[in-house]
Amino acid sequence: MPPLSSRAVAFPSSPIRKLAASADAAKKRGARVFHLNIGQPDIETPPEFFRAIQEASVRVLEYSPSPGISGLRQAIADYYHRLGYPLDMSQVIVTTGASEAIVFAFSAILNPNDEVIVPEPYYANYSAFALQIDAKIVPIATSIEQNFALPDVDAFRAKITPRTKAIMICNPGNPTGVLYPRESLEKLKEVCREHNLYLISDEVYREFTYDGLQHHSVLGLTDLDENTIVVDSISKRFSACGARIGCLITRNEALLGAINKFAQARLSPPTLGQIGAQAVYQLPPSYFAKINQEYAARRDTLKSALQAMPGVVCPEINGAFYAMVGLPIDDADRFCKWILDEFEYEGQTVMMAPGPGFYATPNAGRNQVRIAYVLQQADLRTAMSVLSEALNKYAKQ
Amino acid sequence: MPPLSSRAVAFPSSPIRKLAASADAAKKRGARVFHLNIGQPDIETPPEFFRAIQEASVRVLEYSPSPGISGLRQAIADYYHRLGYPLDMSQVIVTTGASEAIVFAFSAILNPNDEVIVPEPYYANYSAFALQIDAKIVPIATSIEQNFALPDVDAFRAKITPRTKAIMICNPGNPTGVLYPRESLEKLKEVCREHNLYLISDEVYREFTYDGLQHHSVLGLTDLDENTIVVDSISKRFSACGARIGCLITRNEALLGAINKFAQARLSPPTLGQIGAQAVYQLPPSYFAKINQEYAARRDTLKSALQAMPGVVCPEINGAFYAMVGLPIDDADRFCKWILDEFEYEGQTVMMAPGPGFYATPNAGRNQVRIAYVLQQADLRTAMSVLSEALNKYAKQ
Repeated sequence: MPPLSSRAVAFPSSPIRKLAASADAAKKRGARVFHLNIGQPDIETPPEFFRAIQEASVRVLEYSPSPGISGLRQAIADYYHRLGYPLDMSQVIVTTGASEAIVFAFSAILNPNDEVIVPEPYYANYSAFALQIDAKIVPIATSIEQNFALPDVDAFRAKITPRTKAIMICNPGNPTGVLYPRESLEKLKEVCREHNLYLISDEVYREFTYDGLQHHSVLGLTDLDENTIVVDSISKRFSACGARIGCLITRNEALLGAINKFAQARLSPPTLGQIGAQAVYQLPPSYFAKINQEYAARRDTLKSALQAMPGVVCPEINGAFYAMVGLPIDDADRFCKWILDEFEYEGQTVMMAPGPGFYATPNAGRNQVRIAYVLQQADLRTAMSVLSEALNKYAKQ
Repeated sequence: MPPLSSRAVAFPSSPIRKLAASADAAKKRGARVFHLNIGQPDIETPPEFFRAIQEASVRVLEYSPSPGISGLRQAIADYYHRLGYPLDMSQVIVTTGASEAIVFAFSAILNPNDEVIVPEPYYANYSAFALQIDAKIVPIATSIEQNFALPDVDAFRAKITPRTKAIMICNPGNPTGVLYPRESLEKLKEVCREHNLYLISDEVYREFTYDGLQHHSVLGLTDLDENTIVVDSISKRFSACGARIGCLITRNEALLGAINKFAQARLSPPTLGQIGAQAVYQLPPSYFAKINQEYAARRDTLKSALQAMPGVVCPEINGAFYAMVGLPIDDADRFCKWILDEFEYEGQTVMMAPGPGFYATPNAGRNQVRIAYVLQQADLRTAMSVLSEALNKYAKQ
């Protein structure tokens, strides 16, 4: 057999999906499995999305322009304008999900062996996307005890090498639920200017903030236009994960030129998803208000359930819809597999994403799991009872 | 400004889309532009595609499984079975267009600086996709005089280095319209076995063959299961370019494992496109027969028009819907821009893809253009008159 590439051999399994076989087996034996492993909201996709596709009455499903349909690019620019970040639509490139936006950003700025500093724990696929071009993520530790707050400037400085090309954040954070205050972003700006680094900000969870807290985009940082790259997506914002529509935003002209060339090579993002996306980007702010209320209530449900479990650590969660939770266990990979393979409570079990998959540092996060609170409150409550019973039984083994 | 990556700087502009600004300008000044530059068929997407989406009545547009919806994977496996190539659906991984299938294949088998041998001229984005992972395409010359036939085995052997990991073909060929006979594939098999190379076959134009000639897939080569990778797509087959649904097929288990990990990292291909694709893969063979007839007639129209132009060389075209045509000009890049920028015939002009973009060898194909015959015969005839007039005027300059 001809050899595989080194990157194929080293490529990590997704911590979100690696237990899929165990979950399938659980379902096959008749158990109900609550999916807390993946950020797949259960919220209805706005009917406007499907209506726009139907009304478009497409006869020939053509490629769209490579950087996206103009109407959608303009709708995204308008949305940012309403948030207080003026953009020209040429600064918005539509991508096949935020995943492709990240791949494009990495491809445009990283040579093999180059490094991106990312606060840890982080969305596991950042490592995968870096590995695809033989670059790497350099983690910078944050702690559950400090609610995964951004490390101070000197901690970043200590990680910078001649290979460092960017700092990347996810804000609000997946998997942590952390929301960075403006001052944290100003500090990142200081480091990025000091060392001529890109600042990549994954803001797909922007609209999910709680307790009246406000999200700040890196697009609001002054004198940093050449450095900032925002990756965004409709997947979570409009509960349209399967549309595979995201975008990359930058005001850096040279970078836009490179991204446009990458976009041309893959021809175009999905046309139907773009038609739907253009419609939902015109929804009023009240759309987000209602959904935010629902997620805030889910978060409260999750938190109070977790806080009632002995030995469980649930940090502050101010945004997104994930919690990185400390459990009284020694090995989250083992526990998350065990709960699917060997445990049931009233015919039910839960699928969670083991913590270590979100850490690059060996042995970090071994007692943590990521819980996506994307289920209705009643289901979430049941899922938490299942987890509680499971922890009891697991401790007695 | 922070630096771009070397690959971003070196990245080629798409020969198919690089003249987009000139075409837009021509349209702005009121000219009708015939698009012969891009393989965007004008054939109606089967209504079954849209009907399936509508009937699915999706409420939450969720991620699909990473390797694709089971129903679609099975429908693709069934389609191959009907063609005489039995497959298990686990050997089919749904991708976001054939573009992603190629990126996945290259990522799985090429380390930086590794090489893929490809008969030249070839689909320009192969180079782009190789460059994305810092690998490269090594061209092997074919000639318009010999109808772009596959070079003999020794020509391949002469190109093989320790860095060579694969041979890649496009069959039927984009941009050449060549259809490889079974014997040519057998020769490639010989080389691939001899040197333990992958054989990647881009077969997206499989259903477009003329004059009663039959397409042979590399999946039909015996004792080569560990080496063969097929990339495929619904874009041309069902005139659904904007769906962005393709697939990668291999019987190599280790390779499938790697591709599945890449697929997980980008979460899923577009869900709506998959629903539509599943429906159209169940269309009867008569669907293809009718469309083939139309394309064969277009090819005939194109050929006779080209053959009537003095100094124009039009090779045999046995498949796909492209012709790589020799023109009595010195610089196709200049000519293709000139015809858009400065020429009109009865308010009309044509956009073609300059030949050199399909060659890696410097100065090769300088008098060639790629013409996609994706327009109705009447339009194609008019477009050819425009080209003919343009060549006359250009010669007199």
